Amino acid sequence: MDNIRMSAERLEKSKTLELRKKHIGPSCKIFFSHDPIKIVRAKGQYMYDEKGQRYLDCINNVAHVGHCHPDVVKAGARQMEQLNTNSRFLHDNLVLYAQRLQATLPDKLSVCYFVNSGSEANDLALRLAKQYTGHKDVITLDNAYHGHVSSLIDISPYKFHQLADPEENQSVHVALSPDVYRGKYRADHPDPATAYADEVEDMIEKVQGEGGKIAAFIAESLQSCGGQVIPPVGYYQKVAEHVRKAGGVFIADEVQVGFGRVGTHFWAFQLQGEDFVPDIVTMGKPIGNGHPMSCVVTTKEVAAAFLQMGMEYFNTFGGNPVSCAIGLAVLDVIKKEDLQGNALHVGRYLTDLLEKQKEKHPLIGDIRGRGLFVGVELVKDRLKLTPATAEAQEVIYKLKEQHILLSADGPHRNVLKFKPPMCFTTEDADLAVEQIDHILTELEEAGGLKLHNTLNAENENKRKPTDENGHHHSGLAHNKGSSQGVPQQTKRLRKQC
Amino acid sequence: MDNIRMSAERLEKSKTLELRKKHIGPSCKIFFSHDPIKIVRAKGQYMYDEKGQRYLDCINNVAHVGHCHPDVVKAGARQMEQLNTNSRFLHDNLVLYAQRLQATLPDKLSVCYFVNSGSEANDLALRLAKQYTGHKDVITLDNAYHGHVSSLIDISPYKFHQLADPEENQSVHVALSPDVYRGKYRADHPDPATAYADEVEDMIEKVQGEGGKIAAFIAESLQSCGGQVIPPVGYYQKVAEHVRKAGGVFIADEVQVGFGRVGTHFWAFQLQGEDFVPDIVTMGKPIGNGHPMSCVVTTKEVAAAFLQMGMEYFNTFGGNPVSCAIGLAVLDVIKKEDLQGNALHVGRYLTDLLEKQKEKHPLIGDIRGRGLFVGVELVKDRLKLTPATAEAQEVIYKLKEQHILLSADGPHRNVLKFKPPMCFTTEDADLAVEQIDHILTELEEAGGLKLHNTLNAENENKRKPTDENGHHHSGLAHNKGSSQGVPQQTKRLRKQC
Repeated sequence: MDNIRMSAERLEKSKTLELRKKHIGPSCKIFFSHDPIKIVRAKGQYMYDEKGQRYLDCINNVAHVGHCHPDVVKAGARQMEQLNTNSRFLHDNLVLYAQRLQATLPDKLSVCYFVNSGSEANDLALRLAKQYTGHKDVITLDNAYHGHVSSLIDISPYKFHQLADPEENQSVHVALSPDVYRGKYRADHPDPATAYADEVEDMIEKVQGEGGKIAAFIAESLQSCGGQVIPPVGYYQKVAEHVRKAGGVFIADEVQVGFGRVGTHFWAFQLQGEDFVPDIVTMGKPIGNGHPMSCVVTTKEVAAAFLQMGMEYFNTFGGNPVSCAIGLAVLDVIKKEDLQGNALHVGRYLTDLLEKQKEKHPLIGDIRGRGLFVGVELVKDRLKLTPATAEAQEVIYKLKEQHILLSADGPHRNVLKFKPPMCFTTEDADLAVEQIDHILTELEEAGGLKLHNTLNAENENKRKPTDENGHHHSGLAHNKGSSQGVPQQTKRLRKQC
Repeated sequence: MDNIRMSAERLEKSKTLELRKKHIGPSCKIFFSHDPIKIVRAKGQYMYDEKGQRYLDCINNVAHVGHCHPDVVKAGARQMEQLNTNSRFLHDNLVLYAQRLQATLPDKLSVCYFVNSGSEANDLALRLAKQYTGHKDVITLDNAYHGHVSSLIDISPYKFHQLADPEENQSVHVALSPDVYRGKYRADHPDPATAYADEVEDMIEKVQGEGGKIAAFIAESLQSCGGQVIPPVGYYQKVAEHVRKAGGVFIADEVQVGFGRVGTHFWAFQLQGEDFVPDIVTMGKPIGNGHPMSCVVTTKEVAAAFLQMGMEYFNTFGGNPVSCAIGLAVLDVIKKEDLQGNALHVGRYLTDLLEKQKEKHPLIGDIRGRGLFVGVELVKDRLKLTPATAEAQEVIYKLKEQHILLSADGPHRNVLKFKPPMCFTTEDADLAVEQIDHILTELEEAGGLKLHNTLNAENENKRKPTDENGHHHSGLAHNKGSSQGVPQQTKRLRKQC
């Protein structure tokens, strides 16, 4: 019976789909819903369907050290055999893991709370912040996503913008996304970091003027669902200064981007510089390579205030010996296989390849990335920045036909997101980019889109050369040419919208 | 290195404690904090400390089919080797598990949402209810505990009563706990089910009178942290009628009590009768035998309304193939080893043993239980029902010295809670009750407490014979005797308070 259960081909795919429709909440969108994929096994950066077809996984940042990494599997299996219980008992795994995590962080971030998901982590972070400050108002960024529990929908414009009639939480304030490509202050601004931070300062003053009190500013260190946005260096320091002056704390959400993904640093908030230390850091997805676990780390002072409130915090599964054994194994593999170094190396290689594609393809508006966290923003017009939403979907579907898994996200769903397992190779990058090249060529031909007709002559002279990319890439020269206005969308693409 | 990591005795216990104080959030209370236990392995209903000392586990309802059950470990380990990914891909484990769970429930409860914890489940249940009904007001029971995320603290009097100055959520309404031992309507009431339900009806009218609209009534099918309270049969049907009439739904929280624990039924809400079907059921703790997972099951209609809102619900880890493999294995073991039958058999044996103790020990005010969910309420006076809080703590600590793990809970922390792994045996019950007998004897001797002096003559004639126990136990005769008022507490006990 065990063998039957573990067999990968138990059900016909159509039967799996039928049962899913019957018994699984339909609010979870399935990938490629018109022809979903049934995955039965995975290894490293590859996933395999029921027919043995291999897919290159460019999106699964949860399978951080590679799908089914044997060291992680072994650590989990061994600990499951020995003990899996709650943290009301003493256990070495819990404290050793906390110690190891702490060692990756600035000294003052020394107290860990282990929970089960990024959502639980961010909810607890808000509770810690509110208790420590005695305040209630929270500032979040536009397009942010911080989780699916009630308190986090409230601070996730990415989610509540989906509602026809979102109910406004009076204590939540949405600041501008520090997006130097599409946002209010772009790469042509002399100091976008200060300009965006000043907006937060203004917001704080407005909140205070209305009798509010700032508990926290929360942001992903790099916005993921929000469109792979990389804030200008120095922005978070300045925001933290304003927020702390108002008595609030800074919460850095590392759920999507932590654990070495950005290549140069272990945590993405460290990209802002050594002088920036958040008050609370939340972790999630990659922390257990797929095992449900996550963590909140904060200062002694915040932890003490939370204790003083008098209400216990107990999390049934959080910090159990199995989760901690798995977490330790993930840290070991990152180190042993130098996956942070790999992210830096392969990430740069991938970004360079994509930059070359940008020189060739008018649909590519911006390439931005740090390590193996890379965004390719597709636009129908490089000056108007008209989001190429349908084209992004087309790329994703066409890539799937080539057995490459990529996704599109951002407020306009026009940003191709690379966040692959950290064992991703230069060969994998070659393969993915080669296919993207083919697909974009085809799309551009079908749409009559050429590089020289992506300029809008009216706007051309108003914009600085760095306008479309805040990261000092060259290659604007090819943008100069005749303007034929916005390219026509093919009928086929419109159907995808 | 792997071997070092898995070795159970890596750190001296004092070092483990030191690191815990440094790096683990202090808001989680450790068991027996003056002399905590370090557990390094467990099997079945037994846990072992770093010296190999065995403890009988009477409290861990998470390790439902027994600690480290080999079938569950094997299912988890095998699936971890093959695939662990999110539910945006098709996978048989997900749909087969949903189908199996559904088969344990009334037909109309057919749509599953897999999440990571009881807290995530209850938060989602509230979101489903609010979306489906378009209403906001929630009725919860006094002393209830439904989880640790922000939205659930609001509906958990067990938690917010701990605050010096709890902030009231205007949309949350606390109904009386249907406690027939200590509540407003007791066993001497001709129809406590209707009386308690009428209170809910009155509350609904009051809420509506103030412009509110009922989204949901939420209750644990049997209150656990709230003091092992067993609502009178028929209560939930009547409540559901009132709630549905007001346009709301009934949420049954089975996180603590589901999966066969009550012996006669698989779900504790079924104790109310075949005619009672909740609109939403939440599951948790035992579902994965310690693996972080949980589930919300609801009707097609509720699921459709949640979909129509337009906001996706995606849970990164929820319903992954490893969790589902583990969930399936747990269901298999429950069936294969007839653990539900064992819960019924051993639960009755345990309750009978405890009833005999009640005849002997004045400190025992009430024995109540269903299957392997049993509460022993300690009182200093059987008529005044003065909670014997310090004595309950003393019992717990003394049992620990005898290597038996039990806990005390309820609003007065005076209810000894039995909720052991479901493989608990009659021999285990003998051992635990024998030790409780010794400890109570000692406590009663030290406190000068005798059976005949636990009556308060003034109140004696006002109360009906069934007053102290709603479950038709006999044995009140021994209560008759002289009254010497409330027994004195020993100095030693006062220190425990």
